[in-house]
Amino acid sequence: MSAGREGGAPGWETRPYRRIAVEEAYAPRELLDEYVRMLRDEPVEIGFRSLMGYFLTSTHPQPRSVVDRLADLGEQRIADMDATGIDHQVLSLTSPGTQVLDVARARAFAELANDRITEAVRAHPTRFSGLAAVGFEDAPSAIDELDRAVGRLGLRGLIANSHIKGTYLDDPRYLPILEKTADLGVPVYLHPQTLPDDAIRPYREAGLDGAVWGFAAETGLHLLRMITSGLFDRIPGLRVVVGHLGEGLPYWLHRIDHMHAKQVAAGRYEAIKPLQQRPSEYLRTHVFLTTSGMPWEPAITFARQVVGAERVMYAMDYPYQFVGAEVEQLECLPYPEEERRAFFQTIAEDVFSLRDREDETFGAPLSEEPELRDEAR
Amino acid sequence: MSAGREGGAPGWETRPYRRIAVEEAYAPRELLDEYVRMLRDEPVEIGFRSLMGYFLTSTHPQPRSVVDRLADLGEQRIADMDATGIDHQVLSLTSPGTQVLDVARARAFAELANDRITEAVRAHPTRFSGLAAVGFEDAPSAIDELDRAVGRLGLRGLIANSHIKGTYLDDPRYLPILEKTADLGVPVYLHPQTLPDDAIRPYREAGLDGAVWGFAAETGLHLLRMITSGLFDRIPGLRVVVGHLGEGLPYWLHRIDHMHAKQVAAGRYEAIKPLQQRPSEYLRTHVFLTTSGMPWEPAITFARQVVGAERVMYAMDYPYQFVGAEVEQLECLPYPEEERRAFFQTIAEDVFSLRDREDETFGAPLSEEPELRDEAR
Repeated sequence: MSAGREGGAPGWETRPYRRIAVEEAYAPRELLDEYVRMLRDEPVEIGFRSLMGYFLTSTHPQPRSVVDRLADLGEQRIADMDATGIDHQVLSLTSPGTQVLDVARARAFAELANDRITEAVRAHPTRFSGLAAVGFEDAPSAIDELDRAVGRLGLRGLIANSHIKGTYLDDPRYLPILEKTADLGVPVYLHPQTLPDDAIRPYREAGLDGAVWGFAAETGLHLLRMITSGLFDRIPGLRVVVGHLGEGLPYWLHRIDHMHAKQVAAGRYEAIKPLQQRPSEYLRTHVFLTTSGMPWEPAITFARQVVGAERVMYAMDYPYQFVGAEVEQLECLPYPEEERRAFFQTIAEDVFSLRDREDETFGAPLSEEPELRDEAR
Repeated sequence: MSAGREGGAPGWETRPYRRIAVEEAYAPRELLDEYVRMLRDEPVEIGFRSLMGYFLTSTHPQPRSVVDRLADLGEQRIADMDATGIDHQVLSLTSPGTQVLDVARARAFAELANDRITEAVRAHPTRFSGLAAVGFEDAPSAIDELDRAVGRLGLRGLIANSHIKGTYLDDPRYLPILEKTADLGVPVYLHPQTLPDDAIRPYREAGLDGAVWGFAAETGLHLLRMITSGLFDRIPGLRVVVGHLGEGLPYWLHRIDHMHAKQVAAGRYEAIKPLQQRPSEYLRTHVFLTTSGMPWEPAITFARQVVGAERVMYAMDYPYQFVGAEVEQLECLPYPEEERRAFFQTIAEDVFSLRDREDETFGAPLSEEPELRDEAR
């Protein structure tokens, strides 16, 4: 996706790099309507009610603006990208996505989201790429959908909105899905969700279950579980992209390594076994970080220091965190221009195979155009 | 506590500063015996069983060594301090301390711990200071005990081992205790505990409920609750010392401020109200960090950068993390000698009033010597 042939935000032709934002949220309007119905008619998880109940029922302009933007993949979104200087978004189904739905609805809404994102990519190939959603609880259909959405529609990874009804991706039931993702050569984007019902109480009662703190507690735990369960030893080709500068793990690498080694030595837990690497090393071999929601130079510089500058890339977290000034601040990151180019452009191109896309399919009709399914419509 | 008059670890006379370690754990043998009895005879919290069940029943030499050292306030401990170059320990009752006991036992064991620590301070005034334990659930007796242990015995702060049966220090029931602590001019040391029963499951099943991750999740949440509840606005004199380099909060300061401001603006939560400062600012006005369990230059340097070098001091986390080489590594921190002196000595002296102690009571009989109580013996 070199500058010069395809479009971008105004001024892109003269900038030394394109700005690619990789944790950018989308939700089909039908899914938001389904959430509204569930919130009204069904017992739902505490965190889901706290998060989506807020966004979908608040009359405050702030959440209403988020919801309007979530469902748009056209003029509004591109205008916002133009206004903030974002050339390209990697789209993904917003949290909790399919992960609060029953098996049949999860499958149908995953397909709907993947179709919609594909339509947007085709309509605006220089401005959008996308990740695939699946219904995690039915591994065979999830694998089929990965074949379709990644293999045939050209989506560039798998979105996982943290826990699936209290279960985590280290659970053996998800192994075939993660193996398939690795086989397809695309990463898993591990995105936050609210904590499960049996972990959320001390956060919820204090109003801290959302992005202010609970998301990080949930998602940091999830990433660490993936590491300490040995998942990356079992699937060496598995790559995980994680937002919010690693959901806190970079700060803790020394302590995690120290305490993990102690637990392994003492045999304290059945679940804690020797790994092929120190836990911290997986952040340097299998994990990439993005700056979604963390446009803060001290933390970005620290994360680059401890996991490697070549593993930290830009994300905005649109439309949840949509602050144009942040892009300008990040343009002033005190790194050599070549590193800022990596940060904004080339790491994302590598991790999400965006250059391949340009060569093979960008703007061109797919060789085999599937009919968009419509179970969920 | 200037070098030259009182003793320290071998070589202290010629070193440019004393090394004071401020999160150093102690447990009366009687309390450990009581824990063993509870683990055998009573339904106990999941985290308590995971943590103390491990330490008190494992046959592995690693936890056995910890338990032996926890209960010692004499030759073993001083030999360990000498071997690792620690001149002075600020002692505190180990987690979960009194916070898993019923009200009567909590009160009795707090007094016992405070008496024992006082005895050690009197026997080795240059080597030990101590913090006071209380039974939090009975505020009047906790206040009496603070008057006794801080006001008369000369202990230098209050130890709080995170949640009290699932409740947090922002709960109004604890306000009188915290006001008393502030009135006495001493800090609260907020120390980790395992997560409450209704938050621990995703950690416990993965073997991540302990120091490797769960401690931070619990204690970081606790500190943030104290901030966002407005506790520091309500008690401006309250000072909190928190270990493990701030339990993750320093890494998140930008995001916490951003999301907190959004929540306040949108009125999302009843519990989230305007504060007199941004949340991050309380870390620069009311909170001090220690390096317990985090002897890692990149994180220490980052924490100093974002909260101020004058707020980050040394702690070892003895006997849980007892690694002599760490002291030598920290001697090589790339800061000016005056800042290393602050890090190892003078910040602790200021925060815990250790210089006052030397002037007034160190090595001298207290003006009013109380009889040591013995309800718990």
